[in-house]
Amino acid sequence: MKEIIEIGNEENIKNFKKKIEGKKPLFLCVIGNTETAKIPGISAAGADPEITDYTPAADVEYLYYGKCKCLEGVPITPDGIPTPGLITKAALDLGNIPKLIAIGGVNVFPQAPYITLGGKTGGDISKEGAVKNPIQIFENAKILGENLSILADYLVIGESIAGGTTTALGMLLSMGYDVSDKISSSLAVNPRKLKLEVINSGMKIKKISIGDFKNEPFKAIEFFGDPMQPAHAGIAIGAASRIPVILAGGTQMTAILAIINKINPDVLENIAIGTTRWIINDQKTDLQGIVNEINSRTPIFAANLCFDKSRFSGLRAYEDGMVKEGVGAGGSAIACVLSSRKRISMKQICKRIEKDYETITNLKED
Amino acid sequence: MKEIIEIGNEENIKNFKKKIEGKKPLFLCVIGNTETAKIPGISAAGADPEITDYTPAADVEYLYYGKCKCLEGVPITPDGIPTPGLITKAALDLGNIPKLIAIGGVNVFPQAPYITLGGKTGGDISKEGAVKNPIQIFENAKILGENLSILADYLVIGESIAGGTTTALGMLLSMGYDVSDKISSSLAVNPRKLKLEVINSGMKIKKISIGDFKNEPFKAIEFFGDPMQPAHAGIAIGAASRIPVILAGGTQMTAILAIINKINPDVLENIAIGTTRWIINDQKTDLQGIVNEINSRTPIFAANLCFDKSRFSGLRAYEDGMVKEGVGAGGSAIACVLSSRKRISMKQICKRIEKDYETITNLKED
Repeated sequence: MKEIIEIGNEENIKNFKKKIEGKKPLFLCVIGNTETAKIPGISAAGADPEITDYTPAADVEYLYYGKCKCLEGVPITPDGIPTPGLITKAALDLGNIPKLIAIGGVNVFPQAPYITLGGKTGGDISKEGAVKNPIQIFENAKILGENLSILADYLVIGESIAGGTTTALGMLLSMGYDVSDKISSSLAVNPRKLKLEVINSGMKIKKISIGDFKNEPFKAIEFFGDPMQPAHAGIAIGAASRIPVILAGGTQMTAILAIINKINPDVLENIAIGTTRWIINDQKTDLQGIVNEINSRTPIFAANLCFDKSRFSGLRAYEDGMVKEGVGAGGSAIACVLSSRKRISMKQICKRIEKDYETITNLKED
Repeated sequence: MKEIIEIGNEENIKNFKKKIEGKKPLFLCVIGNTETAKIPGISAAGADPEITDYTPAADVEYLYYGKCKCLEGVPITPDGIPTPGLITKAALDLGNIPKLIAIGGVNVFPQAPYITLGGKTGGDISKEGAVKNPIQIFENAKILGENLSILADYLVIGESIAGGTTTALGMLLSMGYDVSDKISSSLAVNPRKLKLEVINSGMKIKKISIGDFKNEPFKAIEFFGDPMQPAHAGIAIGAASRIPVILAGGTQMTAILAIINKINPDVLENIAIGTTRWIINDQKTDLQGIVNEINSRTPIFAANLCFDKSRFSGLRAYEDGMVKEGVGAGGSAIACVLSSRKRISMKQICKRIEKDYETITNLKED
């Protein structure tokens, strides 16, 4: 079994892999909240729309403590489906990979050390502006990325923001990328129609048409994005002039790639996307298609994780298309395997996830 | 001329130096505010007591931007005496040393990326409690230190908190260390009598006597310290189980050493103090005396910086005992020289400081 699925130009894949194999990564998780997530039916991250505010903080608390602090209990849905942070934590722990949390803008702050970049929670893009100060957040994030690039061999930057695929879609559509049928969802059945209704409603109210922000990524964020985006892109651009950066996530990472492509295309050769097999296998998602629209030279790596033999139905649900990616799960697993020069395998990461799931749920199987 | 003055046990000095020479440091500046600084006559950091709240934020903004953002103008007193951050910035820039800002607890936040650790501005120790949640701040800081220790070869941790020598004195006295005649001041004439009055008044109100917190450093911080202290000590302890840590500052660093000595003495072998020649030369300060009371094995390194030939009276004032240290100036200069294996000299750092002073003041000489 291949450890990592590779998609894109062969030479670029080879070059990028060569730069990071055996090297020491730093994992960053950029978190955010957007009121967009509270539109009923948009997000799977939290059963109750109001609880979506807590999901990112709970995710990163889990990375540090193996449990949540801002919420009672464990970061698992009532159906037993865990946060992808379970994958991230297993990979970071096994790989002894350091982690930092950066805040794009949130209502709920994690009870852990975190880096602030001057942003606030994003607005509901169906009604109002999304991010008041994307450039300020971006500039702060860029300084952070520059400084971290002196320390780490490469960065792996993940995200946790409920509603993030909708804001990615809105942001990309306002830049004119034809992605309405390519964006993924954390739900098994993608509420694509609802997402497009949300964005169309916002475009009508703000009198903006598709493509109006073709060369203005900060305007796209301001009107249709979320506060995770300028933070994530800023760190990436700040670091990538010196070291490789893995944008760790699903189709949301194409919004980041689009920002980088417009703001500083010179650093693109140091950028790759790291995701999971579940994103690649999803027939309704076309990550490569979106990447090709933006910059076809960007390699995509997908962690070949598989839960089909798991003892737990909550993990097997990933094989049915639930969750798929988040909290930089795929990128962390890739970094764990590559930094160990494949001494650690995806299978071992899955074994660790299985054990961690058992620990936090107190189940033996279900 | 010796680049670095070394004080303490020769073998420890040699061992510590060996661990850091040619290695890659990370500089952290931990900032805080304490209402104690607003007692008239306590602090030189800001002409007007109310402005002391702005000093730490302005200091770290200067490190990033070469100018302040939260305040108009440059971080220089009306007499032309610059913040020691001028030294820090010159050393970090020359040495290409990455920097991060951590917040102990402040009223004024810097307009830059910074790491939050759950603390708030400290109270006036002559009247009230100093820090409400020192353990929470410490625990967050420790997690940060642990993660950074995987990234950097060693840490240099400085501070900026107006009023910090008074809270260090209060904290150490409450732990029973006989330091009332050994603590330094940013003023040329140390307002020692005033500091002791402040602390005595606080001890009376809180019904605490000298030495009551002999083995309770967190109680000492809670009653007489400041929010920089648990943040600084937490990062140091979190990192020092894996990598060397330079506590970068003047006598305030002995408060940090006292915390480490009580909380986790096992890591002391990875701890040194890094300061400036002006602290060592000050007849009224006895840094080594305090260190010996706490842990005589801790090496002290002092950057042999000298401004006596400077074109600027504001820099020559350092030779008259003004400021002396702060913003991790001494430790940064030491890290710059040692990480470059003395390719960069103290003289070159001074030359850069001279140039930076000229740039920010637009003076040629005075």
